[in-house]
Amino acid sequence: MTNRYFVYLSYDGTSYHGWQIQPNGKSVQETLQNALSLILRSDISVVGAGRTDTGVHARLMVAHFDTDITFDEENLAYKLNRILPADISVSRIEQVHGDMHARFSAKSRTYHYYVHTQKDPFCRNYSCELHYNLDFKKMNEAARHLLDIDDFGAFCKSHSDVKTTLCKVYEAEWICDGSYRWHFRITANRFLRNMVRAVVGTLIDVGRNRITLSEFDDIVAGRNRSAAGESMPGNALFLENVEY
Amino acid sequence: MTNRYFVYLSYDGTSYHGWQIQPNGKSVQETLQNALSLILRSDISVVGAGRTDTGVHARLMVAHFDTDITFDEENLAYKLNRILPADISVSRIEQVHGDMHARFSAKSRTYHYYVHTQKDPFCRNYSCELHYNLDFKKMNEAARHLLDIDDFGAFCKSHSDVKTTLCKVYEAEWICDGSYRWHFRITANRFLRNMVRAVVGTLIDVGRNRITLSEFDDIVAGRNRSAAGESMPGNALFLENVEY
Repeated sequence: MTNRYFVYLSYDGTSYHGWQIQPNGKSVQETLQNALSLILRSDISVVGAGRTDTGVHARLMVAHFDTDITFDEENLAYKLNRILPADISVSRIEQVHGDMHARFSAKSRTYHYYVHTQKDPFCRNYSCELHYNLDFKKMNEAARHLLDIDDFGAFCKSHSDVKTTLCKVYEAEWICDGSYRWHFRITANRFLRNMVRAVVGTLIDVGRNRITLSEFDDIVAGRNRSAAGESMPGNALFLENVEY
Repeated sequence: MTNRYFVYLSYDGTSYHGWQIQPNGKSVQETLQNALSLILRSDISVVGAGRTDTGVHARLMVAHFDTDITFDEENLAYKLNRILPADISVSRIEQVHGDMHARFSAKSRTYHYYVHTQKDPFCRNYSCELHYNLDFKKMNEAARHLLDIDDFGAFCKSHSDVKTTLCKVYEAEWICDGSYRWHFRITANRFLRNMVRAVVGTLIDVGRNRITLSEFDDIVAGRNRSAAGESMPGNALFLENVEY
């Protein structure tokens, strides 16, 4: 009998071409699949809750796989951590109902984007250094507008093959982590490709007074990606949680 | 007229052979001196509040230098940050009284040593992964004993040319940073070479029940370095503050 399992993992995406298997280049999905297949001596395919792009990290990613092989979950997690490289770790494996799907059963996902406005040796790899004066109050005002928007076409990578650009954002806020460190927290039912990084880039345009709040609203309403701000670097983006 | 200045800096020590200038190998002191000398077009020597070993980091290091060249402090800090590599940053430069000395005027220094007991991709470079069950309550009991000790010879690198091994520890405590992350915070008027890492190694021997509390006390009283625990890796050690 085939059973379904959820794997809870985290990874430092620095040296990966994202989550999804690529013809050229190392992916987290492939690395995880290979480790599972090796331990269970069987071809295992894993399905992730979402895709993270090149260089993007996950504090929590959820993936599922099916197998008829029996094993102890805790022991498998232990063995996986021994085999997986230091930049991927598994915190838990659990059997789930066969109806559960890592991607389709997820109700929402939460991402964090980190910025800092002063040179800091300990931020440089996982946060984006900005040298503008940023008005975070105004950025939070603009962020609140995202809660009332249905269509995020303005923040969707051009030439994307996605069928709809409708998303529901539940939470969008800049949070202060210290005198010069901030992160943007966003939770939504789904995310389009590049969406968080384009939203952050456009909010930063608001914060440095390149565009007004009403121009921000116009950009969003226009659903035209080229009108929005630039996409921010991936190394400061973390998939923070997946909610079921 | 020659003036004295304090430089407040932080650095990621990963790629340095410690603070102090070395005949072979890159040091933070030399990197800072070279940048200052380049900007001020004059040979500048800097004196640090203390030495950090190879791979050890500083969230705050203080250094002083003397010069008769006049400049704007904020502007010099700005220029230094442009010239210094990404792993060293200067937060402030200020003129001080000629009597002030980065090393001899310091009343105390505070170090942090970070450990984690579960595989975590985001801890691996700046914290030490341990796979023992650690009794942090007992480790804190032993740590409190350090406050009553005068002579830290047990934790001083052998063949050290130091004249005295007397130190006064003001604070020594393990602090929980999350379910499986901890750090040891220690403040003392002075630190011997390798002292924090040897203290942490010996406290971990207590926490994993390799030695009892009274054996810990005996080791400290014996002032014999070879009786104490092993020296922990440098990459998890941070000079956290220097108090004047």
